[in-house]
Amino acid sequence: MLKQKYIKGFGELSRDERLNMLTEITQDKEAFKNELKNFRFSDSDLQNRLERISENTISNFFLPYSIAPNFLIDGTIYHVPMVTEENQLVESVSKAADFWYNHGGFTTVEIATAKRGYIHVTWKGTTEELESLFSQFQDSIKKKFNDIINKLEAKSVKLNESWLSDMTSEIENYYMFGFSLETGNSMDPELINSLLDYLAKEIMEIAEKHNSGKLSIIMAVLSNYTPGSYIKMKVECPVSDLGEFDKSLNGKEFAEKFIKAAEIGQHSVSRAVTNNKGIMNGIDAVLMATGNDFRAAEAGVHAYSIKKGRQVALTDCQISNDTFSCWIKIPLALGTTGEIVKLHPLVSKSFEILGQPDAKELMKIVAAVGLASSFGGITYLITRHI
Amino acid sequence: MLKQKYIKGFGELSRDERLNMLTEITQDKEAFKNELKNFRFSDSDLQNRLERISENTISNFFLPYSIAPNFLIDGTIYHVPMVTEENQLVESVSKAADFWYNHGGFTTVEIATAKRGYIHVTWKGTTEELESLFSQFQDSIKKKFNDIINKLEAKSVKLNESWLSDMTSEIENYYMFGFSLETGNSMDPELINSLLDYLAKEIMEIAEKHNSGKLSIIMAVLSNYTPGSYIKMKVECPVSDLGEFDKSLNGKEFAEKFIKAAEIGQHSVSRAVTNNKGIMNGIDAVLMATGNDFRAAEAGVHAYSIKKGRQVALTDCQISNDTFSCWIKIPLALGTTGEIVKLHPLVSKSFEILGQPDAKELMKIVAAVGLASSFGGITYLITRHI
Repeated sequence: MLKQKYIKGFGELSRDERLNMLTEITQDKEAFKNELKNFRFSDSDLQNRLERISENTISNFFLPYSIAPNFLIDGTIYHVPMVTEENQLVESVSKAADFWYNHGGFTTVEIATAKRGYIHVTWKGTTEELESLFSQFQDSIKKKFNDIINKLEAKSVKLNESWLSDMTSEIENYYMFGFSLETGNSMDPELINSLLDYLAKEIMEIAEKHNSGKLSIIMAVLSNYTPGSYIKMKVECPVSDLGEFDKSLNGKEFAEKFIKAAEIGQHSVSRAVTNNKGIMNGIDAVLMATGNDFRAAEAGVHAYSIKKGRQVALTDCQISNDTFSCWIKIPLALGTTGEIVKLHPLVSKSFEILGQPDAKELMKIVAAVGLASSFGGITYLITRHI
Repeated sequence: MLKQKYIKGFGELSRDERLNMLTEITQDKEAFKNELKNFRFSDSDLQNRLERISENTISNFFLPYSIAPNFLIDGTIYHVPMVTEENQLVESVSKAADFWYNHGGFTTVEIATAKRGYIHVTWKGTTEELESLFSQFQDSIKKKFNDIINKLEAKSVKLNESWLSDMTSEIENYYMFGFSLETGNSMDPELINSLLDYLAKEIMEIAEKHNSGKLSIIMAVLSNYTPGSYIKMKVECPVSDLGEFDKSLNGKEFAEKFIKAAEIGQHSVSRAVTNNKGIMNGIDAVLMATGNDFRAAEAGVHAYSIKKGRQVALTDCQISNDTFSCWIKIPLALGTTGEIVKLHPLVSKSFEILGQPDAKELMKIVAAVGLASSFGGITYLITRHI
């Protein structure tokens, strides 16, 4: 078997030079190069703009750009752009959306948008000293916060609250300063980390003034664990209506099998993890189409699924007074103004198709697709053995 | 604000008709349609093949196709294709790969590939009766397993073991039949679910013969919780060599800051979740480029991060005898023979660039990129405050 060789200075090469270096082990070098070149855009402005998204590029990768139509969410219809390699996902999500369009649509039950960031420090003094220092820091920040966010050109950012966590029972001298933030339509990690850097500098200055040499900053970083930025969304209809969804089961049979499957998702870790994967199939496809960071959503959602020390399903359902209701409750920290919206022509098209939603409205759309994806997945599993 | 309207029969329309229906709320309808049409391939065979990956397609979505060169893994060099919208990720991963190329490379410590599937049932009899029935089922399956996998054209599939879990303390009458499987180079969920269907039918037949009416199948489905399919990979070098990585710190300072950051990842949930997100940044980008299901990997990895009821970081490090070592241990269930490898010209190119790895070799490549991504991320955090 042929092996690749070490390439020096790959990042400094042109895209064609990079391509050349890769052909060391390809069978037909010219065909390989031509095919990859053909996937670049002939519009060099567009190609160059696109390549600012990532580094060491050699060509473009592509996936089908799909639409799941007819999501009725809080009274508004959305046709939702999705990008996925998961076969039959868009079909399944679209079927669920269509069913719920005819049965009252998706309704937001709760929504909140507080993001979190932390400054991790070590402190070689007493906890009381650090508490007093933190209290001075809070006073100082109250005065300076507007200046800082003006410097960062981040006027939409607001500070909800800040707190000090004593972690010394876990690691010697280790404390965290926690911050709850509102970030408006921006979900730029670099912006939040830069803000935390300013706050870290401020803490350091105050510490140096009063207790020199005792404080060290380990890191200042946003957290993808965002339990304060979440949405709960539901669908509901008379049990008898569910008979329309799959011809093989009447409404009551469908509801009872569905409830049993959902119950298993609350008790079996193996099933809970796979159930939540089914939610993320839908969610990631919308996040990709709208230029959001799906790894952040994955980390947040799976972390949120830990209840009493183990995973549970984040979709659940019940029957009450002959009404079947099914809901999702998940954390999401989304943005609508990232650099990628400017750089990527199809991300901006996605926002156009969705009617230019703000971050909160996008949370609703994404959560509805997650619920539809889970609903479709569970329905598939409970109907294939009949 | 203009709103979209309900569209009937969207899935049956041609791609141009679909596009037309979406322009209801777009500002310049013709420009919108033309731009989306321009992103389709003029080669209609290619475009049609690509559209078999998903449904309700209107065009193609694209991201830069990047290369992280010079991964030295168990003695072989790989230039790794990555697809990501995360700015500076490929650069950071490439920098880490280059550093470790010059310091011994990435080494596989442990690797295993057992996948899991479950048949979830209710049983209206005693546990002893079900145990006896399960034992008959195991005997029967020993004889029939080869026939089943021949029917499924899945000769690479092997059954490691099967077990019965009594879940009645959680849900009345609820049991799980568990299966540990080897799937070779295939990681096709549909194949595994079909195999579980056959097994479910077999259990049902045996149950009906002896204890009619007592067994109901709720669902038969693979699990994305795959603790038996995992890899541990490490890098190591003399502490003093780490001074080469970032000019602002000498080797000892770098190692100590790194160790402190890693320790925090073992104790702070907020940090653990974000650390693991940093691993997945790299991993998902390779999975996308190789046509693997990154939602499955996300679900499995985050589930695996639960230790003692809470998340911990899945990369860790230590200093011993002036040697710094850093490792990752994660579950991965990958395939190299999916339908997408045939349908997608760039997925097959990714395999060509990687030298046609089998599933196990791909696990190593993906884990190494995950470790490099985490190493790069932590380094960024510990060096930005200096």
